[in-house]
Order: sequence, then structure tokens, then C-alpha cells
Amino acid sequence: MNVRYDRIARVQARMREEGLVAIVVMNHDDYRYLFGTDRAQPRALIPASGPPELIAFTGEEPELRASLREGRVLVFGSIGGQIHDVVGRLRDIVASLGVPPTPKPKVGMQMWFDTPAFLVDMFRRVNPELELVSSDPVMDPLRMVKDEGELALMTEAQRIAGIGMDRACELLRPGVTAREVATEALYAMMRAGAERTSTPIYVNFGVETCMLHGRLSPRPLERGDLAVIDLTPQVEGYCANLARTFVAGQPDERQRDLLDAYAELIPAVREAMRPGATVAALDAIAGEVLRRRGLEAYQVNGIGHGLGLRFEETPASTIIAPHRNVPLREGMTMTIGHTILAIPGFGGVRHEDVYRVTPAGGEILLPYPIDPVIAT
Amino acid sequence: MNVRYDRIARVQARMREEGLVAIVVMNHDDYRYLFGTDRAQPRALIPASGPPELIAFTGEEPELRASLREGRVLVFGSIGGQIHDVVGRLRDIVASLGVPPTPKPKVGMQMWFDTPAFLVDMFRRVNPELELVSSDPVMDPLRMVKDEGELALMTEAQRIAGIGMDRACELLRPGVTAREVATEALYAMMRAGAERTSTPIYVNFGVETCMLHGRLSPRPLERGDLAVIDLTPQVEGYCANLARTFVAGQPDERQRDLLDAYAELIPAVREAMRPGATVAALDAIAGEVLRRRGLEAYQVNGIGHGLGLRFEETPASTIIAPHRNVPLREGMTMTIGHTILAIPGFGGVRHEDVYRVTPAGGEILLPYPIDPVIAT
Repeated sequence: MNVRYDRIARVQARMREEGLVAIVVMNHDDYRYLFGTDRAQPRALIPASGPPELIAFTGEEPELRASLREGRVLVFGSIGGQIHDVVGRLRDIVASLGVPPTPKPKVGMQMWFDTPAFLVDMFRRVNPELELVSSDPVMDPLRMVKDEGELALMTEAQRIAGIGMDRACELLRPGVTAREVATEALYAMMRAGAERTSTPIYVNFGVETCMLHGRLSPRPLERGDLAVIDLTPQVEGYCANLARTFVAGQPDERQRDLLDAYAELIPAVREAMRPGATVAALDAIAGEVLRRRGLEAYQVNGIGHGLGLRFEETPASTIIAPHRNVPLREGMTMTIGHTILAIPGFGGVRHEDVYRVTPAGGEILLPYPIDPVIAT
Repeated sequence: MNVRYDRIARVQARMREEGLVAIVVMNHDDYRYLFGTDRAQPRALIPASGPPELIAFTGEEPELRASLREGRVLVFGSIGGQIHDVVGRLRDIVASLGVPPTPKPKVGMQMWFDTPAFLVDMFRRVNPELELVSSDPVMDPLRMVKDEGELALMTEAQRIAGIGMDRACELLRPGVTAREVATEALYAMMRAGAERTSTPIYVNFGVETCMLHGRLSPRPLERGDLAVIDLTPQVEGYCANLARTFVAGQPDERQRDLLDAYAELIPAVREAMRPGATVAALDAIAGEVLRRRGLEAYQVNGIGHGLGLRFEETPASTIIAPHRNVPLREGMTMTIGHTILAIPGFGGVRHEDVYRVTPAGGEILLPYPIDPVIAT
């Protein structure tokens, strides 16, 4: 276990600024960020001051203790219900910090897709004297800017996504099924070092390329089809995102229009991806390209999203609308290509890559060719 | 789309009994159960009376309408924030049902691992005039008993898990890595028809077999190691669960003790898996076997859990403690072998399969050999 005391200290400083007495960690991404490793059931308490505590479950305590090379992290062995034991520890923490009981002391928790609603509910029920709040205001400013080690892992994840895309390309011929493409691409990525994918693999053919969130198309690829493939392997928790659109044969005029528009939109958005810009501003630039090409009716907002240890991190404007106006910061990692440019009932196009925000615009982590035409 | 009007009618009848005005569906499992298909973002409203409504997002509406072969399901196109649009529709539903505004009308939502805490929070914030409650009291009694079609899919999923286990066995030799075993087992299962796995694949070697929730062990398999493998492929959303323990070579005495105890515990629990039994009662039977063998100190409660369209369904006593006392019903599907029998710092053993509750005891869906000794 490679505990990141530097990060924990920064989190605690921000907790004090935000008036939080503790953060309850129940997610793989925050756990990895703070403790430098993963655990099947990641559970920890970070008080506003003092050593962090790992919550161990039956049988797990000796192993957790052994993995800590020194004593600056406490291990708290839960023997009963996790939530009830955590409640007890939180009371101790509140008492030790000398926080008055009114207004209610605030405890932070990550509230994204991977925090189960029933645990939050249960927590609130057994903790009426505490106010449960989102830990985003503490964690986001720290996690959104990536250090060099993080960038190296994200670049490696993009490299593995490229290996999966290479394999998918080899198979994209009329008659192939989406399941076959997904199975082989996943296998290629796992063999290349992916731990898993952070989302299901998307392989969409024909009219199904219109869908905002793809899946595996049921019918095999046909000559003339558009095909959208989106791959999201993870390396040490860090997420990649690589999507490409292909045409099985020579594109027809509408397909060509969509492909050309997307190809023009990407460098325009990348150029504007600088500190201070917002997703709203990037969408406006994409919209301008589409307007000039008469395709503005098909724009879907949310051209990019943040990513890192979570597949969608702030700004994630298609999940949390106010993120449209979050100013980008230098060193953030974001995609361009999140939203499909689709003519309903016909098909859609997108190419997605990961960039680092710099004063000179978005810097791609690892280039992968955009080469949509497949000889059939 | 194969809308299950029979199930929807039963859900609506139970909603009226439980005093719910509507259920908001946001999970793949409930969506599949009611609409006979999956969708990337499954969203629907089931009012206590009247036609169900699918919530479509930008661009998705034509496709959804086309997939409905008749008009008994409404499609409601959301153009803005999902939550806000759903709120508007819920107000209409409450008005159309003529429900008085006090006490607050109750709306149900599934609140397990896959319902994001932030959506529930947002829903409560924008819906102060409604009371949000768990939909379990409505859905559980219906979903826990499986019909023949469901049993066929679950049996097929177990068959595919067996194919993965066969492949894992071939590879389990000293020097193999957990990652290699997991990658190859996953590939074998995907090729055999698995959509995905419902949990990460667990491959644990040596002392790491102690862990309640496994992961991929970092160091390669060594001669004399215990190895626990747990596979969870899904077929049309239905989950399998097959775990086996192996020894790389001849078991030593403690390994043999654990293996013999688990082998004796399974038929004893299976015999008792009848309507009216509870997980607490099954744990007591397992405990009795362990006591006779002097291993009672190592018992972990929660010998089995329900499964179906969700990997853990009611009874899921290791997640929700009161489920220990839920009486089993004929036709429920449950595992035996959920909890590890482990000597801390040494290693653990478990074999998990899926059974159907019958008056004659648990009926295994598909037998798979328990044959732990691997020639090395």
C-alpha cells in the first residue's frame, strides 16, 4: 500500500476550508487516489485532522495491517454492520475535533454513480445528528488536475484502447457481429494489460449509431453501414476513452457530410480547450462548425467530459447540468467527442480522444488515426 | 421489445396495495423484467393504474416508438434534464389518479447498488411534495420467484460459467497469474454467449483466499496454494454464480479439513433450503457442521444469497442485515457457498452454486464437479 500522505494532507486542508469534519470513502476511485491501491470493498474515514482510518471487515484486518508499512494510518476493524460501526467512529471524531453539535457537523461522501442510494439512505437514518453532503467541493479541485504519474497511467490506458481498436478494425467486415467485435477487442485489451473496461464496450452498426449511449447492435454489419466503437479500458483505475466511427465501404454523401463535420469540429474544440474555457464555450465552437455546414439541428451538447480515476469526472455536463459552466484548469484531462453527431433514423458519427488542458489548447494524450473507410 | 403486461399488471396491483402512486424505473434489472429488453439508459414510469411510460432521450424517441409493436405503452420524450421532466410527469400522474396531496404521495424507486445516490438526492430536492420510498416491497415478492423462462436463462448462464471454470482449470498450474486466468476465463465465457460478468472475476491464490471479496492476486500461483475462482456471467441480464476452490498439488491437513468441512456443509444446507427457511436457519445448519469439526470459530454468516436479474437479490443478508430473517419461498433462486471458510493468515475454501428452493430442498440449477486437487 502506497499511502499518499501528500494528497491526504491537501484533502484535509480543503475539508477544513469547506467546514467538513470527515469524509467517508466508499468508492474505488477516491480510495485509490488517497491510499495508492485498490480493495474489493474500499472503506475509509478521513477526519479533518489526524490520521486517516481504514475500515476493515471480518478476516481482512491482519492483511490490511500488514500492507501498511508504518503507523500513520489507523485500522478500524468492523465486526458488525459497516454503517453502524462507522457511525460510532464518526461520533468519536466529532468529539475529538471539539466540533459543537449545532449547526449539524458536516460529513462528506462521494455521490456519483457508484455510491449506492441505500447506503446513503441508511447513513442518514442512523446519523441524524450529522449533515451528509457531497464531497465534490473538496475532492474535485484536487482530483481534476492530473500529476505526471496519473498522466502516464492514462496514456498507457489510451495505448491499450488503441490495441483494442486495432483488433476491432481487423474484424469490421460485412457479416461480423457486434458481440464478436466486442469480445475480441476486450480480449486484446485484457491481454495488453487492461484491468477491465469502465463502461460496457459499445459497438453500434447502421441506424443504431444514432444512440447517445450505445450497446451491442443485434444484427450483423452490412455493407454501407456506419459503425461506432467506443472502448474504455482501465489501468490501475485510470480510464481511457477512445471512440471511432467507420463506414463499411465508401461513404455516401450524408455519411461523408457527418464525417467531414466531425473532423473539422475536433481541432476547433481542441484549440479552445484552454484554462478558463467551459464546456458551454466548447459546445458553442462545435455549434459554429455545424452551423456553417448546415448541420446545427443535429448538435447535442456536451462535446467533452472530464475523466481520470472515474470515467466521468467534473466537468460531466451531460450528467450534472451546472458543470457546463465549470472553468477548465491547466492539467485537467478531458475528452473531445463525447456526443454523437447523428441524423435521426439514419446514423451518427463521433471520434473521441483524451486531451490535457494547456494554455496552448488541448494536448492529445496519445494520437490514434481517424481513418473511417473500411475496404469491403 | 417484448413488454411483459402480465408482470406490469401484477406490479400495479401490488403498488395499489402498498399505497404507491408510481414507480420510477432507472435500473436495467427492473426494466428488463417489465419490458423484456434492455436499454443503455433504462428509464420508465409505472403509474399505479394506466399505461406504463418509457422515457426517451434526445434522438432516441423514434427508435423506442418503433420497437413498441402496439400502443399500450406511452413514450414520453425528455428534452431537458431527465429528473426535471420526470417530476413534471409524476405531478400529472398524481393529479390523474386523484391522490390527495397530504400525506405526501409515495413514489417507489429501486435503492440498491446501481441506483446512484446523486440521482436520488436530486429527485428528493426537486420533488418535495412526494415521498420517495424503496420499491422493494412491491418488486421483491414478484421478482424473487422465477418462472420457467427465467430459470432457463439462469441455467444457461450457469452452463457458461462452467465453460469459464473449465478454461480456468486448464490454466491453474504453478506460475500462472490470476490476471491470465481471469482474462482467458472471461474470453471463453464471452465466446460462449455471456454478455458480461455481473461482478469482476475473482481469482485468489494462497493467503488471499481468506478475503471475503476477492480480486486478482498479484503474485503467480505456487505449488501448495489454495486458489478460489468465482465466475458471474450474465445471459439476457440473468446472473450466474459459480465458485470453486482448488489446491495446486496435494492438500495439506488444514486445507483438507477446510475442503472436507465445506463439502459436508453444502448438502446439509441444500437439504434445509425449503419454503419457510431463512438464511439465519441455513447459517445455523452450516454452523452445526463446522462445530462438529472444530471449525466454528471461522464461520462467516450469509451462506447464500438470492440472485436473478440482479447479482444479489433478496435475501441478501450480507448487505441488508434484516434479510437474514426473510422466509424463503418455493421457486426462489439462491446460492449456497457465498461465504468463505477461512483460517486468517492461512487460506480459505468455498464452492458456490445456484439452487431453486423446493419443498424437497434446494435443487441445483446445473451441477458442476467439485474436484479441488490439481495435479502439478
